[in-house]
Amino acid sequence: MRLARFRTASGGAGFGVVDGHEVARLDHRVASFEALLADPVEPRADDARLPLADVAFEPPTGDHPKIVCVGFNYPAHAAESSRGPSDAPTHPTLFARFADSFVGAGTPVVRPADDESLDWEGEAALVIGRAGRRIGTDDAWDHVAGVTCLAENSVRTWQQHSTQATAGKNWHGSGAIGPWVTTTDEVGRGPLRVTTRLNGDLAQDDTTDRLTFSFAELVAYVSTFTPLRPGDVIATGTPSGIGLRRDPPRFLRPGDEIEVEVSGVGVLRHGVVDEVTSPALAEVGV
Amino acid sequence: MRLARFRTASGGAGFGVVDGHEVARLDHRVASFEALLADPVEPRADDARLPLADVAFEPPTGDHPKIVCVGFNYPAHAAESSRGPSDAPTHPTLFARFADSFVGAGTPVVRPADDESLDWEGEAALVIGRAGRRIGTDDAWDHVAGVTCLAENSVRTWQQHSTQATAGKNWHGSGAIGPWVTTTDEVGRGPLRVTTRLNGDLAQDDTTDRLTFSFAELVAYVSTFTPLRPGDVIATGTPSGIGLRRDPPRFLRPGDEIEVEVSGVGVLRHGVVDEVTSPALAEVGV
Repeated sequence: MRLARFRTASGGAGFGVVDGHEVARLDHRVASFEALLADPVEPRADDARLPLADVAFEPPTGDHPKIVCVGFNYPAHAAESSRGPSDAPTHPTLFARFADSFVGAGTPVVRPADDESLDWEGEAALVIGRAGRRIGTDDAWDHVAGVTCLAENSVRTWQQHSTQATAGKNWHGSGAIGPWVTTTDEVGRGPLRVTTRLNGDLAQDDTTDRLTFSFAELVAYVSTFTPLRPGDVIATGTPSGIGLRRDPPRFLRPGDEIEVEVSGVGVLRHGVVDEVTSPALAEVGV
Repeated sequence: MRLARFRTASGGAGFGVVDGHEVARLDHRVASFEALLADPVEPRADDARLPLADVAFEPPTGDHPKIVCVGFNYPAHAAESSRGPSDAPTHPTLFARFADSFVGAGTPVVRPADDESLDWEGEAALVIGRAGRRIGTDDAWDHVAGVTCLAENSVRTWQQHSTQATAGKNWHGSGAIGPWVTTTDEVGRGPLRVTTRLNGDLAQDDTTDRLTFSFAELVAYVSTFTPLRPGDVIATGTPSGIGLRRDPPRFLRPGDEIEVEVSGVGVLRHGVVDEVTSPALAEVGV
């Protein structure tokens, strides 16, 4: 099943199961999207259905998710980032992103007003379905609701401001996630192919069997120190082929379209717009 | 005013203003703790009052706060961490912590079951009172509700697992924050003295006029990339004197008591307990 959150044309929020070109609404009979992730239910014939063309996808996560991202998890990307075999990691490299650094599928991401280094990073992301702490690798998949696509875009100049990537990884609306969570019974445990296209041209392409730390190992490692709950997200790392490593570097700009495809899940598409700043907007925290 | 969140002996949640040995409850007439931070109101004679001895403090933050922490922000701590003048930072070093990595004042922090490297880090923390984005340094204080004490404790072995500190900074219940937010009209803009005592002995002692990046500069920098909202937290960095840099290192263990004092704010006290693990607890994400 494909579990999605959305807004309707009138601005209402809902969630449900995507079925072809429609979404069957379940928000009238399931308590929350987190509850749907914990216990996915099949749509019934009498559930209201909306054409996908009439909804805007929201991030298919919990209301207040922990979002843990993994860096340098594909060897080819570690190599392009000048992390050679001598830097072979013993543990995952983790950073956190705030939920509002992501938009839903189909919504353009925001390029900073005064910075041109917004770069693409396509990824497969795990969405948690069952709470747990110190989850073993053997049990990890029991805690995963499914997989979604993630554009874990980074503002490179800010990422390099200090040793910690946080400032470059948390620009408001700079990344995207979705369009839905494909449940594990449907997508399987991989290997999944992760590809990123920039304006239709292949930019990133790798498969999750080449991850340094597997999906199950990531769930186990992260849950050792922090409880995971339904709707939390683990972004599993980006393949090689980021714009920073092109010669010359190629960063995102208005007019670009990014597609992140995870095999068996679907395609996350987003455009790019420039940040609009004004004292009035700043005052309300936009 | 001292703005606090608490649980009562019967388990109820509340918030209000601390006045001597009592707290005047405001949760019956103010919409939320975030609203109180945004617009602190004086207690009235007819507000219910509880003895502080009868309440357990909860973190004096929003329900779902962004918590941004700053590393190496006192030069003496940067030096003890082998970051000399040649590493003079051009930008703040930031990482994020999940809210559940903190307990309230008076609640013991949790030492990992299988790791003995939990270390103290006393800090002054800013709590946001007014939303904003791209806040200028001149306006920064208008967006700060007040200051609280923070024990930004770290699990050193996990902090050193990779280049990113995240895993060592987010152990469940490993840090503490509180007991309250002292509003800016009362605490002023500093300099504030930040001291940490281990079992009564002074361990850390510095003043915020020696911060590499000032309170206002931190608000401006962080809000450049992410909106800040009432109840969000910026932890401003720890002075020198951490346990890791003692010879031999001295880490926290059950029976220890930490006091973090910020002048004009108060004292945050916490003990230390060992993590209890069991499959049943793990299943519910404790």
